[in-house]
Amino acid sequence: MIGTLAGSAAMYEAMSSLAYAAEAGYSGPPNLTGNVKGASVLILGSGLAGMVSAHELRKAGYKVLILEYQDRPGGRNWSLYGGDTYTELGGFKQNVQFDKGHYLNPGRWRIPYHHQGILHYCKMLGVQLEPFIQSNYNAYIHSTKAFGGKPQRFRHIQTDFQGHVAELLSKSTRQAALDQAVTKEDQEILLQALRNWGALDANYEYTAGEASSNKRGFDFDPGGGLTAMETPSTPIGLKELLGSGLWRAVGAGSGYETQQSLFQPVGGMGMIGKAFGATLKEVIKYSAKVIDIKQDEKGVTITYQDTKKGGAPMVATADWCICTIPVSILSQIPITVSAPMKAAINNLSYSSSVKVGLQFKRRFWEEDENIYGGITYTDQPNSTIAYPNFNYFSSGKGVLLGAYAFGPGAVRYASMSPEERITKTLEYGSKIHPQYMKEYENGASVAWHRVPWTLGCAGAWTEELRARHYNNLCALDGRIMLAGEHASRIPAWQEGAVLSALDAIRRLHQRVTQA
Amino acid sequence: MIGTLAGSAAMYEAMSSLAYAAEAGYSGPPNLTGNVKGASVLILGSGLAGMVSAHELRKAGYKVLILEYQDRPGGRNWSLYGGDTYTELGGFKQNVQFDKGHYLNPGRWRIPYHHQGILHYCKMLGVQLEPFIQSNYNAYIHSTKAFGGKPQRFRHIQTDFQGHVAELLSKSTRQAALDQAVTKEDQEILLQALRNWGALDANYEYTAGEASSNKRGFDFDPGGGLTAMETPSTPIGLKELLGSGLWRAVGAGSGYETQQSLFQPVGGMGMIGKAFGATLKEVIKYSAKVIDIKQDEKGVTITYQDTKKGGAPMVATADWCICTIPVSILSQIPITVSAPMKAAINNLSYSSSVKVGLQFKRRFWEEDENIYGGITYTDQPNSTIAYPNFNYFSSGKGVLLGAYAFGPGAVRYASMSPEERITKTLEYGSKIHPQYMKEYENGASVAWHRVPWTLGCAGAWTEELRARHYNNLCALDGRIMLAGEHASRIPAWQEGAVLSALDAIRRLHQRVTQA
Repeated sequence: MIGTLAGSAAMYEAMSSLAYAAEAGYSGPPNLTGNVKGASVLILGSGLAGMVSAHELRKAGYKVLILEYQDRPGGRNWSLYGGDTYTELGGFKQNVQFDKGHYLNPGRWRIPYHHQGILHYCKMLGVQLEPFIQSNYNAYIHSTKAFGGKPQRFRHIQTDFQGHVAELLSKSTRQAALDQAVTKEDQEILLQALRNWGALDANYEYTAGEASSNKRGFDFDPGGGLTAMETPSTPIGLKELLGSGLWRAVGAGSGYETQQSLFQPVGGMGMIGKAFGATLKEVIKYSAKVIDIKQDEKGVTITYQDTKKGGAPMVATADWCICTIPVSILSQIPITVSAPMKAAINNLSYSSSVKVGLQFKRRFWEEDENIYGGITYTDQPNSTIAYPNFNYFSSGKGVLLGAYAFGPGAVRYASMSPEERITKTLEYGSKIHPQYMKEYENGASVAWHRVPWTLGCAGAWTEELRARHYNNLCALDGRIMLAGEHASRIPAWQEGAVLSALDAIRRLHQRVTQA
Repeated sequence: MIGTLAGSAAMYEAMSSLAYAAEAGYSGPPNLTGNVKGASVLILGSGLAGMVSAHELRKAGYKVLILEYQDRPGGRNWSLYGGDTYTELGGFKQNVQFDKGHYLNPGRWRIPYHHQGILHYCKMLGVQLEPFIQSNYNAYIHSTKAFGGKPQRFRHIQTDFQGHVAELLSKSTRQAALDQAVTKEDQEILLQALRNWGALDANYEYTAGEASSNKRGFDFDPGGGLTAMETPSTPIGLKELLGSGLWRAVGAGSGYETQQSLFQPVGGMGMIGKAFGATLKEVIKYSAKVIDIKQDEKGVTITYQDTKKGGAPMVATADWCICTIPVSILSQIPITVSAPMKAAINNLSYSSSVKVGLQFKRRFWEEDENIYGGITYTDQPNSTIAYPNFNYFSSGKGVLLGAYAFGPGAVRYASMSPEERITKTLEYGSKIHPQYMKEYENGASVAWHRVPWTLGCAGAWTEELRARHYNNLCALDGRIMLAGEHASRIPAWQEGAVLSALDAIRRLHQRVTQA
């Protein structure tokens, strides 16, 4: 048997070594060999960037200490559970009341298959992952301005958009409009492909019938025995579809970062930070609020306050500093860095985002509407309704992500009290799920611009800002190096934080060992 | 808060009661009220149709007995585990050697979200479900005749197909070729939609760059800190794409029965049959081979042999019979039914299909190629490679579905010995995954035409056959009624078996209570 496949082994070796090099930013754990000469590193912040740095530097022989403002590890890798309290800027305090087993991920909530850096640390930490469902063909796309406000199933909008596109292009092709662009022979194949993909009928038309219903679903499904026969459903007309704007959501699950497969940690995204923190227990100092960052030729000196015990400010010193404090906060802390890095810190603003979690008595989206996981899109300020991707078909309760607001919607949400946010989210959601009011139990929200330790969701880079400031932000500035999602080309994603940290410690290590 | 949403409750009630009626063949458990007058029913076969019938009839007060040919419940609801043995027609015996926790589903392997009948029984039986991943953007589409035999990532083929379609239709639109079909105003919206969905650049062209790479992926992904910048990937040209035929697989995850969300039972599809059988222990007689089915005005008489104990044929009698034996087998058993039903039984042939499971020492598709679950398509006879949708990221072994052959490919596979099937499957698979030969451990296969108790995979209805025979096949013929996937409009799917059974017992019950 093996003989018939000679050469496989060689191909195999080639493939294994090329896999990462060709495609991914992550190329395995860093190889920090060489004499670190007893060097010490102070790391500011125990989010993913800080903990990845600490873990890898410790392994390489560095002396490491993390100063963390909060009393928990993880930073924006965070889940809110029943029993948690959270106080936002402005003093609003929320007592989270979710039942055991339910949670809200206020920040990151999904991990794409190609984010191999964060996936590596999940595996190392033993964090179990389960599929995150982005595209659910039976979830809704909703606009208050289309179809009388009635939510439409994703499968209807996608199938109909593709069907009309296929019909129009077939028509052009058959009317010889493409003769200059496509050879006659290829036109024949194109027509076949369009019929197949667009669910066209024998005349290359997109009509009610078996072909379209086999994709968009039937009005009455095929059954068993002598029950009534299936009845095909009727496609939405091109004019109505285009006018509705709902086509905007058709590509939601085909972006490089939203395409299948995606994952989430079992039990909440915060499981990663929690597990990581446990492995670094002895090197994290919690409740340490950094108030001054100084460096000179000999080392770095960090002044911080213990926010729990109070008392006089304390001082920590080290040879080097990796600072993962979001620059929205860092810009307010005195720091001795070069003018270009200071300009970078001061000029990057942070994007807005608000999430609202709602606990319901029963999983009506599953029981009444056959929606299991995935996302509904709406043009209301709540923007997104996401259904839990676990405990499918269970008889118990469920926590929906009732809002994931961005931009102007997020700003509006952030200006409300937590109670008002819930009220509005229920109002928006009820237009899609009338069960909301009867089944609602409790909720929690996080408006990132009011989160005391980030004042925003993620670095909001523009092309212009990047050209001017990105390299200065990431440079090793004397003895200080920044890391975090803001110091990456994948802002807002956890992978950005991980890859930023790996790059920072590689460069730091090079400096240390080559000095 | 409630005040602002007056009317929700009424909408809610309307929605709950309409949900099923509008869309699904399944309308909840049957309501078999009325006096059953001590009626007895013999059920032939303990597949899903037989067990659903038995369960519901027992609940309604009928005396029920199931005769089952095999020594286990479930029928085609079946998983093969390490330690199992399986002997096919022709005498080939396989000793399955998968490690604990791994399995092959020889038959059904996925449950669409709208198959509410089978989902209801999963819930009733406490069978845990987990997501079945159909579309994986990082899996492959492969043709031996295209791209020099090099497998292509699904995300490349889909993005490029959509990109070229969008570019061509944009071109036609801007050249006024669609002026008769689409108003000027709608053309503007269409162009926007095509640019958005097709990842076109500012000139409505599908080119290498940020827009296309944000869907198809980069040659070098964006990274962190000062690592090299991302480099966009280069789309496949229209001519090459059309000529490759790989576009055929683009719609694989958008069919009504293959679109997300889909589920599989934790631990193998056979968990359903196993759990169902446990609840019916006292009414199933195993190893009972039916050799004669007779009826007269007074009742039905079934003659069967005990294939374990041997001995003289035995006889069971009852008032009614629900026969779920596949007609591929039933056509060989003497049965007193009307000529039309007999013609229906004799004329329906069964489709071919072969599955091969392969155990590998490590999950190289995950570790080397970042493929987590989902399906690769190939033009070779194995047709499908499906990756396990559980134990993601685990360091251990894995069982791939190495072949899911249909049509001519299945016929060819079925003519081979189990060992030859493995050899060929490894050969085909190695063209896609060169790691196959180094990592292979053991395998098992099921060729449905050689399965002694079905002689095929599922009823192969054509439109013509249905017009002539379907109603006769499903009719209550005296005291005998057939049920199973073959007596449904959803052949091959478990939902067909469930809905067929529910319709059969509803009609039987009507006859009994109205007599």
